[in-house]
Amino acid sequence: MSTQDGDHAVENRPAPLAGKQMRAVRFHGKEDLRFEEIEEPKCGPGQIKLVPAWCGICGSDLHEFQGGPNLCPTTPHPITGETVPLTFGHEFSGIIEELGEGVADKWKVGDRVVVQPIIYDGDCGACQDGLINCCYKNGFVGLSGWGGGLSQHVVVPEYAVYQLPDNVGLDVAALVEPLAVGWHAVSISPFKATDSALILGGGPIGLAVLQALRARGCPQIIVSEVSSMRKQYAKNFGAHVVLDPTQDDIVARCRELCPGGGVNVAFDCAGVQPGMDQAVLAIRARGTLINIAIWDKHAKVWPNDFNFKERGYMGVATYVKGDYQEVIDAIADGRLDMCHKMITKRIELDKVLEEGFRTLINDKDNQVKILVRGSGEM
Amino acid sequence: MSTQDGDHAVENRPAPLAGKQMRAVRFHGKEDLRFEEIEEPKCGPGQIKLVPAWCGICGSDLHEFQGGPNLCPTTPHPITGETVPLTFGHEFSGIIEELGEGVADKWKVGDRVVVQPIIYDGDCGACQDGLINCCYKNGFVGLSGWGGGLSQHVVVPEYAVYQLPDNVGLDVAALVEPLAVGWHAVSISPFKATDSALILGGGPIGLAVLQALRARGCPQIIVSEVSSMRKQYAKNFGAHVVLDPTQDDIVARCRELCPGGGVNVAFDCAGVQPGMDQAVLAIRARGTLINIAIWDKHAKVWPNDFNFKERGYMGVATYVKGDYQEVIDAIADGRLDMCHKMITKRIELDKVLEEGFRTLINDKDNQVKILVRGSGEM
Ligand SMILES: [Zn+2]
Ligand SMILES: [Zn+2]
Repeated sequence: MSTQDGDHAVENRPAPLAGKQMRAVRFHGKEDLRFEEIEEPKCGPGQIKLVPAWCGICGSDLHEFQGGPNLCPTTPHPITGETVPLTFGHEFSGIIEELGEGVADKWKVGDRVVVQPIIYDGDCGACQDGLINCCYKNGFVGLSGWGGGLSQHVVVPEYAVYQLPDNVGLDVAALVEPLAVGWHAVSISPFKATDSALILGGGPIGLAVLQALRARGCPQIIVSEVSSMRKQYAKNFGAHVVLDPTQDDIVARCRELCPGGGVNVAFDCAGVQPGMDQAVLAIRARGTLINIAIWDKHAKVWPNDFNFKERGYMGVATYVKGDYQEVIDAIADGRLDMCHKMITKRIELDKVLEEGFRTLINDKDNQVKILVRGSGEM
Repeated sequence: MSTQDGDHAVENRPAPLAGKQMRAVRFHGKEDLRFEEIEEPKCGPGQIKLVPAWCGICGSDLHEFQGGPNLCPTTPHPITGETVPLTFGHEFSGIIEELGEGVADKWKVGDRVVVQPIIYDGDCGACQDGLINCCYKNGFVGLSGWGGGLSQHVVVPEYAVYQLPDNVGLDVAALVEPLAVGWHAVSISPFKATDSALILGGGPIGLAVLQALRARGCPQIIVSEVSSMRKQYAKNFGAHVVLDPTQDDIVARCRELCPGGGVNVAFDCAGVQPGMDQAVLAIRARGTLINIAIWDKHAKVWPNDFNFKERGYMGVATYVKGDYQEVIDAIADGRLDMCHKMITKRIELDKVLEEGFRTLINDKDNQVKILVRGSGEM
């Protein structure tokens, strides 16, 4: 357990600068990602300074690069005060190199840790309800300021840091972030261990949901995916049935596979209208469609499809306190036993644009997670 | 308690005919409602024959009359086998006049009862899960066949009949149906006694939700309604705040009245896009929008509004076993202490078209519930 479960005040000061230079991958604007020298951050009170070990490239990083800045602030972020250019990287593990004044005794220089990147104010109604993921001023290390994992050093508040057990590698630890998204979605959904589930989309988040469902013993996991490589990944990760919406009648097949009216829960990790239409009808009476995808446009729904079968819909956002530790524990005790298979490529920090972003854009179907090696990798 | 909580087989045979004539209000098609003579039903095995006492006219009756047949079958209903013309009336109380072979001993001729009108097959996945309201062959006495409350006699399966306590009038008993709709919506919603609520629409269903929330101690009930008469009704029925969406900023006012991000739950009893848009933003993080309204068209949603605050949406349909008894009990013990105020007009069976349907169309804002007197009224 780490201190983030206590109710100490949120440490939301920016890190002071050290006067020394370091290298970082920074996002300046659409299609403009630069590997450059910036000033190294200094470890302030209540903060922990890390050398990143491994950092994943996320769909939202790609989304910012291709069409942003959207999530990245162009006016000062209400908590970090920063705007683009900003260091990228919010899925990262690292080694503690310095402890700020006042942090708990349990931390030691050299500790292997992973960072939970949510930035929150602690004051708003959502935070007061424990929903830091819904904070009205919500941000992320690596997207909203305070540096990021794609650099040589990063300083984060103590609450963001989670200790790694010895049997969890620093590489796998960089997967805790996307795994926590899937884990959290399953946790707050009405899913019960005997329920059947449909997952729309076999990308990194779909696979994270799939693993979270397997870890909880889901007896019938159906994945709907178009790409043949991703279909193969879904099978490898333990999907019971993999369907192709261009060939299969998803609604009819779900009802056939799950007698009594269809699946209990569906997870939308794709965010497109035809998928949503299918998912609504593929869930049984009182079933729930859980949306994880970020949509580019409005969705159209028939409210009566929800009424006549008392179906539900819910949106989920990242993770809350508790999810990171649960994912770390599940990796450590083997419930999440296949997550290392998500790593499809490892690259160096100076090759992030060409071998990371460009590969994800041009070779999307063959990649799940590309990890970037940091100086702390051992 | 009545036998409907047992798991005896559903009695879904049509009532045989008695060879005698009776009067009934029958729906033939759009704008075609007739007061006519039809053959009286005979009480078969497992059935109970009633003389209706009071019968309410429902929004769905009106909807069928103005734009139907929609709910009313034009091809044989899968359970009743009937098509239009059909006797109307599904919100009714009555007096038992005859008991079919094999019904439970507890029933006596002369008993004051109310009818729960859901017709279901008992076999489908929804029924097997106890969700008779979501039955794949779902129908209603008074809309799908088996006669209705707007007639001199009606025969229903034993499971449909609920005994009335002595202190519940036959007139108020005709309100159990719409009250059960609101009661059920609150019951299956995530509402907890300390939660705040927004209700869109102050018509009969909005007022039913309002009363159900009051009965459970809701400390902050906000009603959004345009009509000044309905606003007055909402106040009379105990709404804490009544807003007008043409004058008030519903989102801003809800957030102001419910610190921390808005209401916990919102009930859509109106079914229009601008109301839904407001409700989504008026609910706080992890809040839920419950849709009771039947919509005429698609609704447009921003999935991201659900994600970023982890909001939920759910559809609800009528009521399940248990709801009727709970409403009867709540009327009897005074938790639903104002429901008689819903009765705004009482009319005779031969005046249903002119004084019932026409009044509801032309004087909508001044009417909540018009009750039609039956031969069993005492
Ligand atoms: Zn907050
Ligand atoms: Zn059924």
